[in-house]
Amino acid sequence: MDIGGTSTVALALDPAGQVEAEIQLPTLKGTQGLLDTVERAVAGLTERSGRDRAEFTSLGIGIPGQIDHELGMVQHAYNIGIDSLALGPLLQERLGIPVSIDNDVTAAAIGAAHLMHLEGTTAYLNLGTGLAAGCVIDGLPVRGAHGITGEIGHLAIDPLLRQCPCGQKGCLETVASGSALTSFWRPDASGHLLMTAVAAGDPEATHALEQLIAGAATAVRLLVLTLDPHSLVIGGGLRLLGEPLISGIRENLDRSAAVSPFLASLEINSRIRILPEDSSAAAVGAALSYQS
Amino acid sequence: MDIGGTSTVALALDPAGQVEAEIQLPTLKGTQGLLDTVERAVAGLTERSGRDRAEFTSLGIGIPGQIDHELGMVQHAYNIGIDSLALGPLLQERLGIPVSIDNDVTAAAIGAAHLMHLEGTTAYLNLGTGLAAGCVIDGLPVRGAHGITGEIGHLAIDPLLRQCPCGQKGCLETVASGSALTSFWRPDASGHLLMTAVAAGDPEATHALEQLIAGAATAVRLLVLTLDPHSLVIGGGLRLLGEPLISGIRENLDRSAAVSPFLASLEINSRIRILPEDSSAAAVGAALSYQS
Ligand SMILES: [Zn+2]
Ligand SMILES: [Zn+2]
Repeated sequence: MDIGGTSTVALALDPAGQVEAEIQLPTLKGTQGLLDTVERAVAGLTERSGRDRAEFTSLGIGIPGQIDHELGMVQHAYNIGIDSLALGPLLQERLGIPVSIDNDVTAAAIGAAHLMHLEGTTAYLNLGTGLAAGCVIDGLPVRGAHGITGEIGHLAIDPLLRQCPCGQKGCLETVASGSALTSFWRPDASGHLLMTAVAAGDPEATHALEQLIAGAATAVRLLVLTLDPHSLVIGGGLRLLGEPLISGIRENLDRSAAVSPFLASLEINSRIRILPEDSSAAAVGAALSYQS
Repeated sequence: MDIGGTSTVALALDPAGQVEAEIQLPTLKGTQGLLDTVERAVAGLTERSGRDRAEFTSLGIGIPGQIDHELGMVQHAYNIGIDSLALGPLLQERLGIPVSIDNDVTAAAIGAAHLMHLEGTTAYLNLGTGLAAGCVIDGLPVRGAHGITGEIGHLAIDPLLRQCPCGQKGCLETVASGSALTSFWRPDASGHLLMTAVAAGDPEATHALEQLIAGAATAVRLLVLTLDPHSLVIGGGLRLLGEPLISGIRENLDRSAAVSPFLASLEINSRIRILPEDSSAAAVGAALSYQS
């Protein structure tokens, strides 16, 4: 299951990792809402897959927030109304099967590597409401010490020095994320609105897109220089802006490579893959994460 | 062996990973010089350890440059006079034992995690002539796709926008490295000179130290937000500047945590360890790297 702020995607994988059934339902908030959402998703999957509930051998969940994978703890998942919850143990007791909890971006990284058949090291850059990354090495996610692996959106290096809700100024997330668009372009920002405004020559929209592209390209260079991944997957809702964003990122990377033989030798552009539009990477990765 | 631009440290490990013998000798440059250096180091170690040459079961080498660990290839090790060399296969043929080649910073990360008994994920930040990092997860180094893991020194994010030899402007290495001091403070820069000048109130020296501290602290935050390591080890020659540098980095991290509850929750300062002054981490890590 991929539990997001507004909706939850749940799917059933067969032992070979193929999707047998998939449903989407609204996410109910708070502890009780969350438990109910999971229960309803499990009920929906049994119905849709035609399988008995006892046939489900494990449950994997990808959810925003700071996750302690070993303890199954969820912290700071504010957009689901959760401050701190032992979600794994709670669900394990209710459902009677092993439950694995991962950060949603880590889950998406696992799922993307699996669905896109990527070997070696895969870095996953999520351009969504926030900006974050995940990393999978030879099928195993890098989970880190305190559940904050890949929180590169809060690296404060952007020269615009915009105030970030985290307290710092100039976080990458203040330029390259959906929340950057709603906070600094217009409150009702959407990908469609942005592209329409850019096409109409709106200078503020053009500036917002340029900042988004520059921040995303910086995040790509950061991930390549740190992790040297075989593949770098761009996912998240903003990737659906499509060509203007993706070709903008590629051109930015080409420009930096043009001035630096070192950067050019890294062939960053050839490592980039875009997560397919209809991918349920986070839900698939969550389902797989019990093994990894 | 830790093969550096001026000298090579070689040591013999017993099967338990304890140092049996250690020698230091000058590094001879170019292909022939490098092979001779290794031969002389092996001869010296047999002599000093009292062991027969046939008792050495493997050789690990840490060396600067872009390394293909699988092929044993060394590229761009300019300060040793090597552009491209199949060092692993060459040595394997000469010595008749398996040879493992790693980047020197990766080797140091392996060695630091071993010598300092660090579990989980260890990030290693090398403040030396250059600025680079290594990462070890549960004893295994992250080697990446093209031998450039941890080259965070060439992330171009510093607002001073100083020209870097790599072609970019504002690389972290242009403020937080030994080469930054020689290029932008004074050509004969040394840690001792810098500290003396700072103590005498020299404003340019003070600025150089402040930039060094700020760049190193940014590198620390970058590594923590990307890898979420259990421990972050600061190594490299510049760490020997000691307290003024280390406490400067810690104060910088405290200041960023003071404005950001999120950063504060990461407890970055409590993850930091300083590599002991007399450590041969890179040589030990290289010797261990055949297993990892
Ligand atoms: Zn922030
Ligand atoms: Zn550079």
